[in-house]
Amino acid sequence: MLQTRTEISTLLDSRRAGYSLPAEFYARQDIFEADMDVFFRRHWICVGLECDVPEPGDAQVIDVGQTSVILLRDDDNEIQVVHNVCRHRGSRLLDAGSTVISKLVCPYHQWTYELTGELIHAPHMGSDFDRSCHNLKPVHFKSIGGLIYVCLSDNPPADVQRLADTMEERLAPYDIGNAKVAYQSEVIERGNWKLTIENNRECYHCSANHPELCVSFIDLDFGFDPASLSEEDRAEAEEHQALYEERTRIWEEEGHKSAVVEGVVNCTTNFRTQRLIIAGAGESQTPDATAASNKLLGSMTRKDLGDTHLWGHNCWHHFMGDHAVISIIIPLSPDTTMVRTKWIVHKDAVEGVDYDIEKLTSVWVATTEQDAELVARAHSGVLDPAYEPGPYSRFTEQQLDNFATWYVDQMRENGY
Amino acid sequence: MLQTRTEISTLLDSRRAGYSLPAEFYARQDIFEADMDVFFRRHWICVGLECDVPEPGDAQVIDVGQTSVILLRDDDNEIQVVHNVCRHRGSRLLDAGSTVISKLVCPYHQWTYELTGELIHAPHMGSDFDRSCHNLKPVHFKSIGGLIYVCLSDNPPADVQRLADTMEERLAPYDIGNAKVAYQSEVIERGNWKLTIENNRECYHCSANHPELCVSFIDLDFGFDPASLSEEDRAEAEEHQALYEERTRIWEEEGHKSAVVEGVVNCTTNFRTQRLIIAGAGESQTPDATAASNKLLGSMTRKDLGDTHLWGHNCWHHFMGDHAVISIIIPLSPDTTMVRTKWIVHKDAVEGVDYDIEKLTSVWVATTEQDAELVARAHSGVLDPAYEPGPYSRFTEQQLDNFATWYVDQMRENGY
Amino acid sequence: MLQTRTEISTLLDSRRAGYSLPAEFYARQDIFEADMDVFFRRHWICVGLECDVPEPGDAQVIDVGQTSVILLRDDDNEIQVVHNVCRHRGSRLLDAGSTVISKLVCPYHQWTYELTGELIHAPHMGSDFDRSCHNLKPVHFKSIGGLIYVCLSDNPPADVQRLADTMEERLAPYDIGNAKVAYQSEVIERGNWKLTIENNRECYHCSANHPELCVSFIDLDFGFDPASLSEEDRAEAEEHQALYEERTRIWEEEGHKSAVVEGVVNCTTNFRTQRLIIAGAGESQTPDATAASNKLLGSMTRKDLGDTHLWGHNCWHHFMGDHAVISIIIPLSPDTTMVRTKWIVHKDAVEGVDYDIEKLTSVWVATTEQDAELVARAHSGVLDPAYEPGPYSRFTEQQLDNFATWYVDQMRENGY
Repeated sequence: MLQTRTEISTLLDSRRAGYSLPAEFYARQDIFEADMDVFFRRHWICVGLECDVPEPGDAQVIDVGQTSVILLRDDDNEIQVVHNVCRHRGSRLLDAGSTVISKLVCPYHQWTYELTGELIHAPHMGSDFDRSCHNLKPVHFKSIGGLIYVCLSDNPPADVQRLADTMEERLAPYDIGNAKVAYQSEVIERGNWKLTIENNRECYHCSANHPELCVSFIDLDFGFDPASLSEEDRAEAEEHQALYEERTRIWEEEGHKSAVVEGVVNCTTNFRTQRLIIAGAGESQTPDATAASNKLLGSMTRKDLGDTHLWGHNCWHHFMGDHAVISIIIPLSPDTTMVRTKWIVHKDAVEGVDYDIEKLTSVWVATTEQDAELVARAHSGVLDPAYEPGPYSRFTEQQLDNFATWYVDQMRENGY
Repeated sequence: MLQTRTEISTLLDSRRAGYSLPAEFYARQDIFEADMDVFFRRHWICVGLECDVPEPGDAQVIDVGQTSVILLRDDDNEIQVVHNVCRHRGSRLLDAGSTVISKLVCPYHQWTYELTGELIHAPHMGSDFDRSCHNLKPVHFKSIGGLIYVCLSDNPPADVQRLADTMEERLAPYDIGNAKVAYQSEVIERGNWKLTIENNRECYHCSANHPELCVSFIDLDFGFDPASLSEEDRAEAEEHQALYEERTRIWEEEGHKSAVVEGVVNCTTNFRTQRLIIAGAGESQTPDATAASNKLLGSMTRKDLGDTHLWGHNCWHHFMGDHAVISIIIPLSPDTTMVRTKWIVHKDAVEGVDYDIEKLTSVWVATTEQDAELVARAHSGVLDPAYEPGPYSRFTEQQLDNFATWYVDQMRENGY
Repeated sequence: MLQTRTEISTLLDSRRAGYSLPAEFYARQDIFEADMDVFFRRHWICVGLECDVPEPGDAQVIDVGQTSVILLRDDDNEIQVVHNVCRHRGSRLLDAGSTVISKLVCPYHQWTYELTGELIHAPHMGSDFDRSCHNLKPVHFKSIGGLIYVCLSDNPPADVQRLADTMEERLAPYDIGNAKVAYQSEVIERGNWKLTIENNRECYHCSANHPELCVSFIDLDFGFDPASLSEEDRAEAEEHQALYEERTRIWEEEGHKSAVVEGVVNCTTNFRTQRLIIAGAGESQTPDATAASNKLLGSMTRKDLGDTHLWGHNCWHHFMGDHAVISIIIPLSPDTTMVRTKWIVHKDAVEGVDYDIEKLTSVWVATTEQDAELVARAHSGVLDPAYEPGPYSRFTEQQLDNFATWYVDQMRENGY
């Protein structure tokens, strides 16, 4: 007879260190709902950029599960994030996408709010109606170096401060808050969000699957088993290791923070940053590893400062001299995940003059498509009754083990 | 940790008078199933018209949830409503839509029924087979002024009699049973059926959303807060109020029942009727408020008798001198609702001669599309975790408060 | 108030002999999952043919629910069936469909397996990694006369031996293992798999629904009520009955096993075989009942040996002198079922020379489409609350009664 559904806490107990998660974590609707509650409501998540709304009145709708928020810039040039839910009968105020507004007017019955969320007009509600009790609900948010993080719960985790302290300094030269979104893509991966993240946390799969990325990206940076390599490859790997240490030392001496800072286990806010060497021409993640944009980002004056890499539990970003690539994931269902990618250039860079859009975007467009295929393949397999958690490589997949450990810990912390 | 699912009865308790319903009532599958059971199986619902099947042998399939019934006219010119389920192995007898038949023959194994539902042929069942135990199952139905109401349960509510007594007289002059369906549309609204009904029970949203309808329709009839109006608008509103009372008095004196009759709370069968003034040219809900059809309905001789309006919990109808608009809703899922609209003219009215189809239909085609948009917007918002029940205007949304009260009462009555 | 969900065991108890199953068995998700567990995991199911993978390195992916298996032919020309799940992180090894391979290489991280399933390469896993613990998981399978049966559980039912003993001899002359798949179709029926099987187990519906099939197929073979027939038809039926007995006697005397052998109740493995007369020209299930292929199957030398018919609980097959038709069903959801049909000819038969593909396939292409329509119609009806289990004809639907009895028994055997 069919087993009754195993309790989530029993499944959490059953997770074996060094092994991938039990299948239920990728499949079950109730666990998906728990994930959305824990990791996308109670944790800080990256949802966009200050430069998504560059001018007063600019607004962008961002959906996370059934929650819809409006990222906007008010008349005082301040960023605001409010819930996209009219306080009358709940109607959506704005449609998906970007728009420009002077007030937030609900199309249903014309309840009208200031860009700060203040309710200023509600016809037919009677003279005793207290508008001040019906302002739009605000959302906790934080701009970290121009990246917008939100927390949808009332008790945002405090340890986001370490992320802020680390990244404010590292991101300052790129001035992402005043940059320009040159291109944006959305890919729906047919897999659970944790498989999307796991796929992102190793480069074990890169050499065989990402020919375009591997021109500029060095999979060795993410670990290798010396015994797996030919003598020649091992020598190359050791040479790269030495070069990486040397460069990191020099960059740090020059005042460019480069060393790894991470909070991946024993913390609430999950992140990892590190300055990586760009291979080949050494400038940028483009087909030939040279810069795609002539105008460098922010106050950057050099193209040879590598790739400031930042991971979160719902994002991965690369900041280079000439451009940045911002990737944000939003789970849609247990088996689909949206990956939204933004390519960022200097705000004055002009397409066709300062940068070629194809050169700028092609590496990560290809890589994202390839990853979507891998995630779909993994998702289909882990749902197969024949799947059982498999062993992680301690050389190349340590960060997956850390992620699984952190996942289980955070579920526990939140009462599961 | 995620809350366990709240009991429906607890949610019913939590409904606050004067406020919209808790989100769960618009979202949950189990509540949708309860709604279908209570409001679409145990209550009388409007499903069509006698003139949908004008001739003997005419048959029309009507689906309500997983129930499919056949509305037909038998050889004695009598209306019949039977279940569209063969008594052999359950096969559907007829496909969706309209057809003409002499017998009901199941395509699977040729079991054959009279149009009364009597089984007259069942091959290979043996000589001891008792056909009389296998007639098609009949459905409780009632024609009220040509409108077909059915109740899918075995114990139809008795208070439908008040609806019948009220409407038989009011609808008689329109002779809807012998009219013609000039046009029919089906729109799938992306929202819960209760949002569709709530949207229909107020005209607070009309002025900003229904420019076409507002030529002939007067939103003031559905309430207003004098304090919300400019001095000019208030004067106009008071003038209209006086005109409405005067016209109602005159119509009543002339023998045209006009005053409000309603059963909206403290009753099982929910309805409201009222004769409304048509604005502008005053004749009909058309782009210029003049009649669309030269042949008036039934025994009508005047175009200036306004709009006999009738609401039920799954329908809204407008009966005017020249035509009627019949709207019926069938919930399809917690988040989709089908709105079927029929435009009715005199049975001898000829398209292109007596009426122009575009003039006849354009106002409600546009209005229905606009309402579908509003309902989708409201549905998306009420599912947002940031939604909380909002305040109804006591001036313009009293009927929504009544509907919510009636909804909760009826759920209670049925054991929830 | 809505009933709570009835226990499956209570529903099993409620099944009435001689009547179709209660609606829940065709509708409920939990019962679908139980069906998949009992009938598609714990029972032997037919999934393909040896000649689906004729050469070493040929591989074909076959999905059954969330299970994906690879049917392949290894370097020693042996058939292998392994799970399509990498032992690393569960990725699918092969995509749906057919391919040719020398090793099984996981595209994710290049774990590499021999065609026997042995893991021979797993980079970066460290020198202490034991590859022998991570071979691909094998699947229990059995070739019966070239038909591949698998059992996805660890305890395959032993009574498959009776099927094997019966069919090995009967199928030998057709040499299906060395034949050729000339054409394959997949049709998604919008109905529960049990309705697909029920539809296949009677020919009560044939005369009115399958004009193409009825040229060569004789519905009388599947029972009739003499009292239902005209005097003329009854005489014809009796004449056919006598002819069938005479032919069976002659065929058996000539050494061609023809009599019915069945295990349809009181057994685990459900099957029925019988040699049937082909009507009209008597050779094959084609539009004119003459052979479609000039090259006969295997060692067949005669076209007049009728149709060796074989039923299983997930398949039905017809073996004729010139070709065979193999039909396999895979349930996809409670309300959809995939029917995969393969048309088999001699391996050296050349399309356009030895056979015309249209003549070969048209009868069962048409019949399968017609059956899909009937199953959809039945499925929609049994889900109607007005459905109640209906009476089977003891003349024409005895095999449906047997199937329902076997279904209930097997559910019981498996703890429901």
